[in-house]
Amino acid sequence: MLVGKQSWVFESKPIIRSTGIIGGPFEANGRLADEFDILHDNLWMGQGSYEKAQTVLIEQACEKAIEKGGLTKDQIQFMLSGDLVNQLTPSTFAGRSLKIPYLGLFGACSTSMEGLAMAAYLVQTRGAKHAVAVASSHNAATEKQFRYPTEYGGQKPPTAQWTVTAAGAAVVSHEGNGPRVTSATIGRIIDMGLSDPFNMGGAMAPAAVDTLEAHFRDTGASPEDYDLIVSGDLGEIGLAIAKELCEQRGIVLKENQFKDCGLMIYKEDQPVLAGASGPGCSAVVTYGHLLNKMKKGELKRILVIATGALLSPLSFQQKESIPCIAHAVSIEAEGVTS
Amino acid sequence: MLVGKQSWVFESKPIIRSTGIIGGPFEANGRLADEFDILHDNLWMGQGSYEKAQTVLIEQACEKAIEKGGLTKDQIQFMLSGDLVNQLTPSTFAGRSLKIPYLGLFGACSTSMEGLAMAAYLVQTRGAKHAVAVASSHNAATEKQFRYPTEYGGQKPPTAQWTVTAAGAAVVSHEGNGPRVTSATIGRIIDMGLSDPFNMGGAMAPAAVDTLEAHFRDTGASPEDYDLIVSGDLGEIGLAIAKELCEQRGIVLKENQFKDCGLMIYKEDQPVLAGASGPGCSAVVTYGHLLNKMKKGELKRILVIATGALLSPLSFQQKESIPCIAHAVSIEAEGVTS
Repeated sequence: MLVGKQSWVFESKPIIRSTGIIGGPFEANGRLADEFDILHDNLWMGQGSYEKAQTVLIEQACEKAIEKGGLTKDQIQFMLSGDLVNQLTPSTFAGRSLKIPYLGLFGACSTSMEGLAMAAYLVQTRGAKHAVAVASSHNAATEKQFRYPTEYGGQKPPTAQWTVTAAGAAVVSHEGNGPRVTSATIGRIIDMGLSDPFNMGGAMAPAAVDTLEAHFRDTGASPEDYDLIVSGDLGEIGLAIAKELCEQRGIVLKENQFKDCGLMIYKEDQPVLAGASGPGCSAVVTYGHLLNKMKKGELKRILVIATGALLSPLSFQQKESIPCIAHAVSIEAEGVTS
Repeated sequence: MLVGKQSWVFESKPIIRSTGIIGGPFEANGRLADEFDILHDNLWMGQGSYEKAQTVLIEQACEKAIEKGGLTKDQIQFMLSGDLVNQLTPSTFAGRSLKIPYLGLFGACSTSMEGLAMAAYLVQTRGAKHAVAVASSHNAATEKQFRYPTEYGGQKPPTAQWTVTAAGAAVVSHEGNGPRVTSATIGRIIDMGLSDPFNMGGAMAPAAVDTLEAHFRDTGASPEDYDLIVSGDLGEIGLAIAKELCEQRGIVLKENQFKDCGLMIYKEDQPVLAGASGPGCSAVVTYGHLLNKMKKGELKRILVIATGALLSPLSFQQKESIPCIAHAVSIEAEGVTS
């Protein structure tokens, strides 16, 4: 299982049996709208607060994934969930209504792949027959907590990113059909001293490349093993830095081989500055768009590196720089022999 | 590995090879002072904020545990850490300096056993040779975030609990000597509608008993298999309720068989109202006091049920009740055959 210092190879290749992809109004106008199961036409989702709206996203993502997998909630051993809200409030309240034994995770935007890695691990090692990994974010809940209430209309620099309103859930199973999880690399926390919360992509890029290097070193894989390497949400600036760092460290990537989930979800004309972010971003792009491409045969093997900026409003106020992390998970299309 | 619906049995019995137990001034005056590795004489630990002080607690707990285990940080594959501060700020910053691949967990005060369960799971299944699980809390950081700055001197009802200033770390290994982790039960989120954040023990008791029932049902163990069943931090009121619930559900416990970490750490005359709480509470009582008793032969098999109140200041303001969870881990003394 453990290979090298910080990676796992999943010999039995746990199956992503089904997924649930739920989004908000901004996502409904985005490039990947067709790949969502449910799209809400406003940010409230019938609730009295944005955090409760996010709970609805998580509940629907899990319910949809479980239903599409032909399973019932009772058959799922564990729910692995995390989000950006203090004390994971939306995840907790979704866990309360779903009643599935619950493991709370926090890795900021990297939570999506922390959850998928752990769910695949549990299934690989017979600790679960079925586990659901879910990651989510809500634009207004995040703005309110980390920045200003959106009603203030505060301006942002072009390096800032737009938090996605979405939840993506994946049911990982020991049986069924679907793309397969083949390995995972758990990242270290890297902090290069950047402290601007409006340039998180720049701060996160070194963590992404550190995990990428560790992944290749530990698993013996090389860039050509993947049709696509996709970061969680580095955005335009972070992705450019990450590409430069790869070059410096001798990781040779083909043109268009390294992309970013944060640059895929919205259209060119949506005002998202440097790109999208949030745990929900990499979750819905991976579980929706990328897995659909795998099912259509357009992608055979991908590596998803979800990045997380582990800052808090408090660490920023205390003039700390931004510690960052990235977790990588490799997925291969069904029927691809390794 | 998976037994029943939500439990794991660890056949190879991963070893708690070493521990690090760090506390603050209130703990230095407590009943278990002798069982700490380091005790600080003030709440600041040489730092400029309580959150940074908590980072020091975590760093020292991990370093001490790793050193006592005769290992170096490089030999530890994964650090599993969580705390009560928003975005796990103290854990994150400790992860940054320790440079060990990092998995962030959040289960409020149940984080201690969420971490130990996951670390033992990873070692059992050869996903790690050595993993360090650490849980922590800091009284003043918690008061400031969840309640009022301590300088206000706000009064509390007798049902309230006192958050422990401490970090407890355990190095779980595939080899070495020490008590062994034999099974774990991951809890569901239970909410009985209580909403008083000054009576969290009462809110958490049903979750503790739900997990206890699940543990016995899944593993086939019965109360007489354990010399001691110890809850994380139910406090006086929560423990009384939990005992009553056990009786109602036909779980027959001997006199003094069911205790609470929150009632062990301080002396009778310390003003802690209904008892102690915080992820650091169950971590230091278990990794210090209880494992020491196992090493001395006074306890053979114990079950630790760490309870967590998954509320947030925001969920309280939004008039929500308190969702609670509990995770149970069973530990047996070295050389005890099962």
